[in-house]
Order: sequence, then structure tokens, then C-alpha cells
Amino acid sequence: MSEALFEFLCRMGDNTLILGHRVSEWCGHAPVLEEDIALANTALDLLGQTQMWLGYAAEVQGEGKTADDLAFLRDAWDFRNVLLCELPNGDFGRTLMRQFLFDAFNVTVLGYLQNSKDRRVAEIAEKAAKEAAYHVERSADTVVGLGDGTEESHARMQAALDYLWPYVGEMFDSDAVDLALCESGIAPDPKSLRAEYDALVQRVMAEATLTIPEDPFHHTGGRTGRMHTEHLGHILCTMQWLQRAYPGATW
Amino acid sequence: MSEALFEFLCRMGDNTLILGHRVSEWCGHAPVLEEDIALANTALDLLGQTQMWLGYAAEVQGEGKTADDLAFLRDAWDFRNVLLCELPNGDFGRTLMRQFLFDAFNVTVLGYLQNSKDRRVAEIAEKAAKEAAYHVERSADTVVGLGDGTEESHARMQAALDYLWPYVGEMFDSDAVDLALCESGIAPDPKSLRAEYDALVQRVMAEATLTIPEDPFHHTGGRTGRMHTEHLGHILCTMQWLQRAYPGATW
Repeated sequence: MSEALFEFLCRMGDNTLILGHRVSEWCGHAPVLEEDIALANTALDLLGQTQMWLGYAAEVQGEGKTADDLAFLRDAWDFRNVLLCELPNGDFGRTLMRQFLFDAFNVTVLGYLQNSKDRRVAEIAEKAAKEAAYHVERSADTVVGLGDGTEESHARMQAALDYLWPYVGEMFDSDAVDLALCESGIAPDPKSLRAEYDALVQRVMAEATLTIPEDPFHHTGGRTGRMHTEHLGHILCTMQWLQRAYPGATW
Repeated sequence: MSEALFEFLCRMGDNTLILGHRVSEWCGHAPVLEEDIALANTALDLLGQTQMWLGYAAEVQGEGKTADDLAFLRDAWDFRNVLLCELPNGDFGRTLMRQFLFDAFNVTVLGYLQNSKDRRVAEIAEKAAKEAAYHVERSADTVVGLGDGTEESHARMQAALDYLWPYVGEMFDSDAVDLALCESGIAPDPKSLRAEYDALVQRVMAEATLTIPEDPFHHTGGRTGRMHTEHLGHILCTMQWLQRAYPGATW
């Protein structure tokens, strides 16, 4: 069980780590100051969640490592984030669409994880759920505001949704790890969350006057570590540079 | 003298290393196959020259290091390339304009270095000069072809020249290192090469129907290591990743 739990914790922590890093790339580049600060805060929240998930993952692994070790000293093939989190930012609209599609998942799964039979998982989920609830409210508002906005903002948001939608399905894939955790009451089967997620997303997209693509195809490979996009390696180059160049450096 | 010689060799080798890496970024992305192959070959030539300059630099340094150590294990502040070499590729036109502005310098300085009183420097220069002569012929042809081409290609080449010109002057700066090498007959004073360089560049730009900016200001900091642009750090992130993540890895 500890192997499956470690895998699950990496999946949770790598999602927030990689998405947090992506969002942090906006720092100093957002279209208006308030959005710049909001994006930086979102990134910080995601990194805070990472600290908790990967911190617990390192304990479960039992090799004396820390969350930092897992974040900065693993290579691409050991990362377990869904591909959605590593996709390039694109324009502001695509970044916020990606954020909403992830937030909607995060807030849903965290709701169930608060009742996890693993006390630590439940505690982490309780803390993270408050932030996720705020995130999804904010990103949903922006998706609606830009989707139901000008002709150009609508077109950009529809393009963002078309581009990102094939990466949504991966969040609800199930494998042996998920089934083992589900059976032991630690985490829900991702499959079982899909209807709730779809209801939320459909409501927001309707309000945003955006059309969800019908093609059921979805990319996979990230959460199982089988295959990431080429983007992950570039993220790691930047993100891990300091600890790679100056091993063990501390503040 | 060995300190000044080491500095000089790093300046030569870092120019070709960083420009070579930049040019290699085009691999698989150039507008037509022949240009893709030509750019990759140019990058390889520049890396070959790097191997010679930094290989000799490592010997002169006498700390048991190799060219690879100097390329992959120094941080930004130890690099001595001129800023021109680290500037982003931009479009194909800007890449070729940067190439020509560097090639014209390289072929000029290598001509003098073939008569260096340092036998090793003379030998390296002799090998490198053959490649540089070919490079400058090719990049000059492209600058002329695109400059004296369509309205759009002309506008792009003029924009490239306007953008890059303030980085040309740094190649002809002189400091104590240059004077020491000049006095001992190892290398020419860069200042003394300017007239020859200008004659070549003016001839090519006239044929390309492009106007050389009149503002005499030029950026400095790269060849002395005082200050690089923000771009160098990003280049090193990518370029040094493998040796940083897997120290001592060999083929």
C-alpha cells in the first residue's frame, strides 16, 4: 500500500508543483497589476499544496528525502502530473482556462479527500480545499467574463477550450493505484468524480457562451509517468537549475 | 601572462560556444531543409572551434580541467562571450544578420591570429579561419539576398540590423588583457581591426540596400564578464542541464 500511496501523493503534488511553476512564469508579465498579483498568489498557493503533498510523499517513501528533493532532484520520467498542468501558458485567456479546468478538478477531488481514512491526507485536503474553492471561483469568473466578453476574447477562450479539452480526460483515468487507494478508503476513484466535474464545467461554459468539444479523445501518459510532453523537460531545466548547479544550496 | 591568455581564450571560445548553441536552436525549425542543414553545420563548426579554444584555455589554466568542464560547469559570471552572441534568434533574418556581423569579426581576427607568436593560437586560428571564410561568404550572401529582396524581407533585415548594431561595438573594445596580448604578439588589439571590419560590413550592407545606424552607442559587459543579458542564464539552463543533472556523465 505504501507504494500506491506514494504514487498517489506524487500525482497530487506534481500537479500543483508543475502548474504552480507554469503560473509563476506570469510574474511581472500579466496584463494588469491586479492579475499579476493574483496569478503570483495562485502560484504560491499551489506551491504550498505541493509542499504538503510531496512532504508526505517523502515520508511515505522512507528514504530520508524531503519535498525539495522530490521537486528538484527527480527527472522527467519520475513526474506524475497530468499533461494539462505542463502545457505552455499561451495567452492570458488560455492560462485562466487551464486554471479553471484544473481548479474544478482540484476542488472536487479535495472535497472527497477531506474524508480520507488516511488522517494526513484528510488534513492536507482540508487546508488545500479552502484555497481551491477560492481559486475555482476566481478562474470561473474570468472564464465567464472573457468567454462572454468581446468578440476577440470570446474567440480566444473558445480556442483555449478547444486546445485544452483533450487534456481534461486524463484527470479521470483510473489504474491499479487508484483502485487500491479507493478500496482502502484513502482516495476516491477518479472515474467517480467525472459527473460532478462535468456538471460544474458545463454550467460555467454555458454562462461563458463557450462550446465544449464533442470529441471524446483524450491524451494520457502524465499521471502514470509513461510519457510527458516535450514541455516538461524545459520546465525542469529552469525549475531545477539552482539545485542542479549548486547541489544542497540553502537560503 | 597565462591569466591574460586564459581570459583571451575564454573570450574566443565562449563566443563560438554561445553563438553555436544559439544557432543549434534552429535545428528542425529552419524555413527550408537546406537552411536547416546549413545552420546545423554552422553550429557544429562553431562548436568545433570552441573545442579548440576552450581546450587550450583549460590547459593554460592548469587545473586539470577540460573544454567540457569550462563549457558545462561555469556559471554566467564566468562567461566571456560578447553580448551579440547570446541575443535571441528572432526570425531567420535576424539570425543570419547576427551571424554575418559575427562572421565578419571572426574572419578578420582569425586572419591576424594565424600569425600569433603563440604557436597553438596560430594553429587553431588557421583551422578556424577556413570555416569562418566560408561562413562569412554564406551569411553575407543571405544578408544581401534578403536585404535586397522583397519589401517584407528588406524591412525585416533593416529591423535586424537596427536591433543588432548596438552590440557590434563590444567586439572592438580593448582592455588590459587585450593590450598585454598585443604587446606580446599573441593577438591583435581589437581596436585595430575596426576599420577592416567596417569596410567589409559597409560593402555588404550597401549591396543589401540596408542602412547602418549612425548612433555610436554600444552595449558592453559580456567579454569582460561584468554583466551579461538575462538571456545567457536561460541558455545555460538548457545547455548545461545534462552535466548539471548527471555530473560526469559520458557517452
